[in-house]
Amino acid sequence: MVDAPPGPSAGPSLSTLLTALREGTTTPRRIAAEVADDLARRGDDGVWITTVGRDGLLARAAHLESVPDLDRLPLFGVPFAVKDTLDVAGLPTTAACPAYAYVPGTTAPAVAQLLEAGAVLVGKTNLDQFATGLNGTRSPYGVPANVFGRGLIPGGSSSGSAVAVATGVVPVALATDTAGSGRVPAALNGILGLKPTRGLISTVGLVPACRSLDCVSLMARSVADLRSLLDVVAAVDPADPWSRRRQRRSVPAPRIGLPPAGDLEFLGDEPMRRAHLAARAALPSVGPVSEVPLAPFLRAGELLYQGPWVAERLLQFADFLATDRDAVHPVVAGIIEGGAAYSAVDVFRAQYRLAELRAEVDRLWAEVDVVVLPTIPTTFTVAEVLADPIGTNTALGTYTHCGNLLDLCAVAVPAGLTEDGRPCSLMVLGPAGADDVVLDVAARLLGEAVTPAAAAPPGSTDIAVVG
Amino acid sequence: MVDAPPGPSAGPSLSTLLTALREGTTTPRRIAAEVADDLARRGDDGVWITTVGRDGLLARAAHLESVPDLDRLPLFGVPFAVKDTLDVAGLPTTAACPAYAYVPGTTAPAVAQLLEAGAVLVGKTNLDQFATGLNGTRSPYGVPANVFGRGLIPGGSSSGSAVAVATGVVPVALATDTAGSGRVPAALNGILGLKPTRGLISTVGLVPACRSLDCVSLMARSVADLRSLLDVVAAVDPADPWSRRRQRRSVPAPRIGLPPAGDLEFLGDEPMRRAHLAARAALPSVGPVSEVPLAPFLRAGELLYQGPWVAERLLQFADFLATDRDAVHPVVAGIIEGGAAYSAVDVFRAQYRLAELRAEVDRLWAEVDVVVLPTIPTTFTVAEVLADPIGTNTALGTYTHCGNLLDLCAVAVPAGLTEDGRPCSLMVLGPAGADDVVLDVAARLLGEAVTPAAAAPPGSTDIAVVG
Repeated sequence: MVDAPPGPSAGPSLSTLLTALREGTTTPRRIAAEVADDLARRGDDGVWITTVGRDGLLARAAHLESVPDLDRLPLFGVPFAVKDTLDVAGLPTTAACPAYAYVPGTTAPAVAQLLEAGAVLVGKTNLDQFATGLNGTRSPYGVPANVFGRGLIPGGSSSGSAVAVATGVVPVALATDTAGSGRVPAALNGILGLKPTRGLISTVGLVPACRSLDCVSLMARSVADLRSLLDVVAAVDPADPWSRRRQRRSVPAPRIGLPPAGDLEFLGDEPMRRAHLAARAALPSVGPVSEVPLAPFLRAGELLYQGPWVAERLLQFADFLATDRDAVHPVVAGIIEGGAAYSAVDVFRAQYRLAELRAEVDRLWAEVDVVVLPTIPTTFTVAEVLADPIGTNTALGTYTHCGNLLDLCAVAVPAGLTEDGRPCSLMVLGPAGADDVVLDVAARLLGEAVTPAAAAPPGSTDIAVVG
Repeated sequence: MVDAPPGPSAGPSLSTLLTALREGTTTPRRIAAEVADDLARRGDDGVWITTVGRDGLLARAAHLESVPDLDRLPLFGVPFAVKDTLDVAGLPTTAACPAYAYVPGTTAPAVAQLLEAGAVLVGKTNLDQFATGLNGTRSPYGVPANVFGRGLIPGGSSSGSAVAVATGVVPVALATDTAGSGRVPAALNGILGLKPTRGLISTVGLVPACRSLDCVSLMARSVADLRSLLDVVAAVDPADPWSRRRQRRSVPAPRIGLPPAGDLEFLGDEPMRRAHLAARAALPSVGPVSEVPLAPFLRAGELLYQGPWVAERLLQFADFLATDRDAVHPVVAGIIEGGAAYSAVDVFRAQYRLAELRAEVDRLWAEVDVVVLPTIPTTFTVAEVLADPIGTNTALGTYTHCGNLLDLCAVAVPAGLTEDGRPCSLMVLGPAGADDVVLDVAARLLGEAVTPAAAAPPGSTDIAVVG
């Protein structure tokens, strides 16, 4: 048996699976069995923290097959993975910290909507503990292997979800993205990562990182799959105070903003610079290109990791740290405890600065529909991250940090390889509400069909108020 | 000579003045001379911190008369007052603290737009120092007399602007309103106070109180005058990061939300309760009435004065307090220094709670177009405020505190007197952008014509980016 070439799986997409299911050339049980076989073959590869197991997969598939008309559901029979900070009733939520684990009685609405749409949950995926990290090494459950090999980190915090999709075990996964936790591991494993407009997907039932910025994000291997997933999970949730309604916009020839090439930072990674510039050379065929400043994006990003927002993590985990500090990854504990250094005055000062930067970026959207940046400036190996856990991690977020602070949506799009075989990724950013526009740009870049965004699909209902 | 009856002036409105000017029955110089005579007659009544003086008024009026076609300007010849936290080039900005005073070289855009529209600046008005207070007693420049007499406070912080309008010296004034500083003194002096949607009027050139919440507000004796003023000062300002474009909406029969009468708090002031309930009995003739909960408005308001937002005042004045604490009103200094007690974690915790309350209130706007509350729960005398400066002040803001935190617009509308002769005021609240809707409700309550809000007037241009 020859090893598969490095890089993401070319395995069946969500739409391929759905077509096969509907044409009767496969069944939910056969798909479930194949997933179980795949997981057994892979063994403990650090991707999963909990799985439902072969019996669980087959039972769910059998249930789906037994319910009449269920094959009309938009995700009928589709296997998916969930980052282990999102609650699934009856399975432990660990947030990659065994001492923190609890078994929720209720499933997070984002997961529940996939299940209601007929999808098949495979399990809960590994992550940088408490979603604190962009590298994928900060977990007691191991480091999932990057699909490009070479000792590269998988990226994080949603390391397991990214590798589960990139290896082809599942076509789609739920992740989260506060500072880049969805986009960075997508970039490092050659798949797509959509960080939707904040509020589009309910964050109820999510272990928070920075509650004011947290965002459930989506991973897939095609734009069409991301869109199918978004159509199901985007829903107004009255229980989520940040909830917002999805806007459906499309732009025939999106105006693309690019920063001056010389302003881009690749931290000395010249092959990555060349790969990025080669990839962005495709953009003029997507839409008219004009220049935009890079500075407000970088300055906003710096506020996130060098400013008081880390106090949101402390607010969430202070009680746990007070009693169980030894159970917390030492790097993660140190970062979170840093939140205690900030005063209320610091927060307001940073929020004023952010308001200025946000106003500056908001004005750009009069000139361009999207801005395209690198998703990551370079790649790191596991050894490099362990040697400098803070410096490398901050570097990874150079371009992604600003996304939620500036209230943007973004999609990380695979964009070929460096000459030495590492993944390059373009990040398409747009203003809040432009999710369908950034997906359209991604589709054009990948040669996929651009889906008309006008019609609301059957799955896009509001989440009911329960109780 | 008999004393005028207590209460606000029935003197000429902005529209009466403009009509007289355009018909030639008066001139800018005659109006300016009358203002100068009026000020001389009143002497130092604590209303003004700086005036331009008789010569200044007459020079400005003569200039206006000399410029051809200037009488086409929307505020040609109209005298106005400005709260002394807004910069006017060449006049000191004191913020009611002489040691803090500086002479700005640039005029705040909000003031500049009135001047460009042909208005005549009379002077800078008194306030609770650093706009910290809702009572009008916290100033070294004296306590302006409430027009209802009886030893009542004028309200604050915009005490001077309110009394300048209520006594008829000027038809209109600029004030500010962070926690109620525009609405509370309007209520206490029987005039109208509009706190527009935050961002509608530039806050550039304003001494901040809580920058994230500050709002330039408007005072007048009629809805028509408020609207004329708003048409001139509402403008997008790229230099103000919180700037937003005015929406022009109107609703034929606005749906009115009222909290259960029994939930309203009047702090034992039974005459005020009766006056309020009598006043709100007029609402069913304005539009269909339904019940809304009071709690989210009160809970949000409590966050403002019992939460970390006071750190914004500390951020603004910490340096000055460090060097000149003795020059600061002791109550004001104590309040501002309280901001040091709050951590970054406290801010995020309060902002989470606010997000929940805001989401709750946002959902109300699907059911009603406006909510009507009392502007103030009761009145206080100067003696009562001096005896309990914090408690009385907090009480005054019971209903107004929530306005900016919940991103609402609001207008305080005179609503008759209590049986013992004190002013009652209704506050009409609407969501951000509903400024014209709340003004329409105010107009209907006062029997004024409802102005169609559709057409954009000539003055509503953006502020140019300078330099």
